[in-house]
Amino acid sequence: MNDIKQKIDMANAEAVKRINEADPVLVDIAPAGEVIPGLKDRMVLHSGPPVTWPNMCGAQRGAMIGAVLFENWAGSVDEASRLLENGIIRFEPNHHHQAVGPMAGTISPSMPVWVVENRTFGNRAFCRQVEGRQQFGDYSDSALEGLRQWRDIWALSLRKGLLGMGGLELRPIIAKALTMGDELHNRPVAASSLFANGLVGPMLEAGVEKGHLLSTINYITKHELLFLGLSMAAGKASVDPAAGIEYSAVVIAMARNGTEFGIRVSGLGEEWFTASSPRINGLYFPGYTEKDAGADMGDSAITETAGWGGLVLAGATGILSLVGGTPEEALAYSKEMRQITVTMSSSYRMPVFGFQGAPLGIDMRKVVQTGITPIIDTAIAHRNPGYSIIGAGLVRAPMECFKKALLRFGQKYGVK
Amino acid sequence: MNDIKQKIDMANAEAVKRINEADPVLVDIAPAGEVIPGLKDRMVLHSGPPVTWPNMCGAQRGAMIGAVLFENWAGSVDEASRLLENGIIRFEPNHHHQAVGPMAGTISPSMPVWVVENRTFGNRAFCRQVEGRQQFGDYSDSALEGLRQWRDIWALSLRKGLLGMGGLELRPIIAKALTMGDELHNRPVAASSLFANGLVGPMLEAGVEKGHLLSTINYITKHELLFLGLSMAAGKASVDPAAGIEYSAVVIAMARNGTEFGIRVSGLGEEWFTASSPRINGLYFPGYTEKDAGADMGDSAITETAGWGGLVLAGATGILSLVGGTPEEALAYSKEMRQITVTMSSSYRMPVFGFQGAPLGIDMRKVVQTGITPIIDTAIAHRNPGYSIIGAGLVRAPMECFKKALLRFGQKYGVK
Repeated sequence: MNDIKQKIDMANAEAVKRINEADPVLVDIAPAGEVIPGLKDRMVLHSGPPVTWPNMCGAQRGAMIGAVLFENWAGSVDEASRLLENGIIRFEPNHHHQAVGPMAGTISPSMPVWVVENRTFGNRAFCRQVEGRQQFGDYSDSALEGLRQWRDIWALSLRKGLLGMGGLELRPIIAKALTMGDELHNRPVAASSLFANGLVGPMLEAGVEKGHLLSTINYITKHELLFLGLSMAAGKASVDPAAGIEYSAVVIAMARNGTEFGIRVSGLGEEWFTASSPRINGLYFPGYTEKDAGADMGDSAITETAGWGGLVLAGATGILSLVGGTPEEALAYSKEMRQITVTMSSSYRMPVFGFQGAPLGIDMRKVVQTGITPIIDTAIAHRNPGYSIIGAGLVRAPMECFKKALLRFGQKYGVK
Repeated sequence: MNDIKQKIDMANAEAVKRINEADPVLVDIAPAGEVIPGLKDRMVLHSGPPVTWPNMCGAQRGAMIGAVLFENWAGSVDEASRLLENGIIRFEPNHHHQAVGPMAGTISPSMPVWVVENRTFGNRAFCRQVEGRQQFGDYSDSALEGLRQWRDIWALSLRKGLLGMGGLELRPIIAKALTMGDELHNRPVAASSLFANGLVGPMLEAGVEKGHLLSTINYITKHELLFLGLSMAAGKASVDPAAGIEYSAVVIAMARNGTEFGIRVSGLGEEWFTASSPRINGLYFPGYTEKDAGADMGDSAITETAGWGGLVLAGATGILSLVGGTPEEALAYSKEMRQITVTMSSSYRMPVFGFQGAPLGIDMRKVVQTGITPIIDTAIAHRNPGYSIIGAGLVRAPMECFKKALLRFGQKYGVK
């Protein structure tokens, strides 16, 4: 038994060592179909563990329909629904393709995605543009127009600047943003501002045409959630090398599709351990209440998996006006998260804790032992298709996922 | 006696009401000689209360010499010193000219200054460019080169963009930066980033030539202390309307010339109440120790006077790696500052205190009664002329200033 425990501790140490060594660099912004392995024509990726069309939540269905219309694979909402229902347009989880996506998470081939390379290990991860409409299930033409501008103007302009400067290191931006009140999930406002600062000059130098440059500057300097797509891609690229370590109990993915919440554990391969997606405790935009709300959704909990988001709430009290709660509660959350993690980050530090490292590496054993589940910052989508964002709040990962994983861990490795 | 107390309370309430109503807007960036009232040819303004050449500290002398060389009023350091010593080049405090300046604070006529208008009251305030060399006493040609680029490229480009956009409201930037770990004095990194975000597009639209635009973008997106000049001008513009209110015990200026620390009080006109400039408790750059340090210097404590800087340290724990101390101490400082202020700001809020307002309006009576003096973030200059910045730290305003002011207050208003 002690022998097993030692093996697990060593495997966990190896997992967090790899995450600590991660060096995520934004290397490209390219159409998803050109860069994401296995993303084929007539396929849309989505957030969370696998799900069937009949079980898919309203917001994710709406976003799927939006993606199909955006790709011009259907001329109407009805036609799009039928193609999805009949399996003519396929869908698979982002996490099965080295990708992540916020909220419904829909990624279709012509959408430009952030391409982040972990220079230490050579692996890549991808995330789509963050916006507040289509990814929440709004398939209206004006919602899709935001995707078109991203595809035709903003992503192209940013790409030109980015390639001209030879890539952008994300670790320094993330580390700095953590000293500027960001938690990099619902509140990446500082990182977004720093990112805009970093790209403007290179776009100008690269000769982006003035109209496109102005439009892109306007977009990136006013989009406070812009960096979430980058922190998600950086999180995925940072954590992926910690997958598949035998005996490791470190959680390497937490993702939700609005129907189910699923986790993956390093020592347990590619299996998802799921439970029903929880309800969110949050604040609603005017006109909406919790009766309108869908359940927890999105791959964005990759930020918590990487040690940011809810895990570093104590340093991001500015977020409380968005998600609710008090500074004392925020402090308590981060202290709790230290109890269920393997170590503290050596790259990402928290001034509010005297520059100690952010909690890193959720150990599913500790979750079950302490009864403390990871706290996640999140946004709230409508329960039905066709709506934009309706609120934001906090949610706890369901204990059931961790218990199921621990059971399988026991079966696989002969631990009780 | 109660009657007097009531008069003071009402006068203080009026003072903080005016500060609360301030609406500082950056309206221009123009040569000091064209906009600052009373700044004549062969005159240099400086930080702090009035001082004579023999009493002037080394760093301020060095900066004076730098300003004289920058203006080409002298061809050598010796000549510049002689002209200053003989009164051929005159110097007066910034505060006597609606102006403020960081560290030595030197403002000479051809230096472009930030022009901030308080739209509520119509008054204007001015602050010079913040940099890390000449204002610390370094008069080398390479230090002056930074001033020349500011004059010939950066200020001109920014001015073109600013005038094109019709001015820039500073209150929203300051309020937002306070939720992003800034205290707007030694740590204006978020505000600087947001400011850069706001000016890039307008400069491009205004047709700033590409080479100048690139140089200016490079300058404003990498200069983390850039916004200090703006928070100082905004602070001065915000507090000035609270001056000259009969019976008010609210402090409306705290300024240091490296020899003396002086305060002004609303109900006591333009008189300075001074004490020796204190030593700074701080961290030094490699190669320097406290033996090299000059005493406290600069008009930048206008940020504390306006309710930022040391007063809001609790929300800016990222600064502690620069100035030293623990998050617990930072929290304690801000709580202390609530004991010596009249109210809490209605514009500027602190997430770490559940979005309560920042402490506002230092009441000199409370300072003397409680024994708690204002805490100020500051940088450290060398004791001798010719050096750049050598460190940063925290300092307490000397109690003697407040006791002297209280004594005069008693004489003037018949209070004991």
